[in-house]
Amino acid sequence: MSLLPPQIQKAIEEFSKLPGIGSKSAERLTFHLLRSSKASPENLGKALTDLKVSLHYCRHCQMVTLQEECSICVDASRDHTTILVVENPLDVIAFERSGYTGVYHVLHGVLSPIDGMGPEQLKLKELMDRCSGGKVDEVIVATNPDVEGEATASFIREKLKEHVKKITRLAHGLPMGADIEFADQVTLKEAVDGRRAL
Amino acid sequence: MSLLPPQIQKAIEEFSKLPGIGSKSAERLTFHLLRSSKASPENLGKALTDLKVSLHYCRHCQMVTLQEECSICVDASRDHTTILVVENPLDVIAFERSGYTGVYHVLHGVLSPIDGMGPEQLKLKELMDRCSGGKVDEVIVATNPDVEGEATASFIREKLKEHVKKITRLAHGLPMGADIEFADQVTLKEAVDGRRAL
Repeated sequence: MSLLPPQIQKAIEEFSKLPGIGSKSAERLTFHLLRSSKASPENLGKALTDLKVSLHYCRHCQMVTLQEECSICVDASRDHTTILVVENPLDVIAFERSGYTGVYHVLHGVLSPIDGMGPEQLKLKELMDRCSGGKVDEVIVATNPDVEGEATASFIREKLKEHVKKITRLAHGLPMGADIEFADQVTLKEAVDGRRAL
Repeated sequence: MSLLPPQIQKAIEEFSKLPGIGSKSAERLTFHLLRSSKASPENLGKALTDLKVSLHYCRHCQMVTLQEECSICVDASRDHTTILVVENPLDVIAFERSGYTGVYHVLHGVLSPIDGMGPEQLKLKELMDRCSGGKVDEVIVATNPDVEGEATASFIREKLKEHVKKITRLAHGLPMGADIEFADQVTLKEAVDGRRAL
């Protein structure tokens, strides 16, 4: 690879650090940027350099925002007694589309010792502080239904059970539009266990 | 998406312009950069901003380089009468690993009207200029064996046939380690047509 100028090698190296991008993809992306008329390295470079400038976490829910508080937390029409706990800011966007009217708390990750993510790396202390005032009626834990997500949910329940009366977890079952034939056995078991009156 | 700060939206938008990266991947990459300890938006941003600065195309072979001429073109020990024509700089790296000892010419693309790539967008004029001096014995066309690559190869043959005696194309056939059972019919036909004495 010593034939390539160091600037190109550096860009390839930095691209390779991203999840799902190997060295071949990184090479392809770098040369695409050098050649393409639509995408340009300057624009992407500037966008990334600007990324952390003037970016805050909302002091209540830890959502990324430009102000001290995010637009959801300052909205008086929302139900501030229900907190939906999510892994990352994109989950907030997803729940907003679904019509949820309470407020959120963004953990910015899940418990995952193998990735160096312990309770201190998550925004758990901030969640505890919000719940300790006694003003929260319900905490809905909406971490992903995988090993790390379930472990994080259990951890949160243990930490909060003395402060919050109602701690709930999202329903498991068949997603809308799914084909039962192709559903995995755990999902089907959860769907039967959680059946509701028709 | 209006919930996300404009800096983040901008980074997602720029990532989406890259090949093989949709809006969901772009979101994931952007938030990975915000959170990761290994990759950082500043480093990738700087690498990309630096990319076009002080980067030249070699004035002979059009390879990316820091100087006026690349290290291959100034190497007197190489065979300067044989030019291997490739689509992009990464192909040069691949042929260097294979032990090729001639020189190169990088087209920076292939003919592809649908992507707006005509003869003017490629480094074809520079190739014509190199071959018109009468010092080139052989031009090996090493574009990819796909529709655009074959069309580009035919175009180059028509343009150069008056100036260069020997214009060749890479051999087609079974790649090393391939399984005949899974080879496609065109490759098998090419492998039979191009058979050699054992």
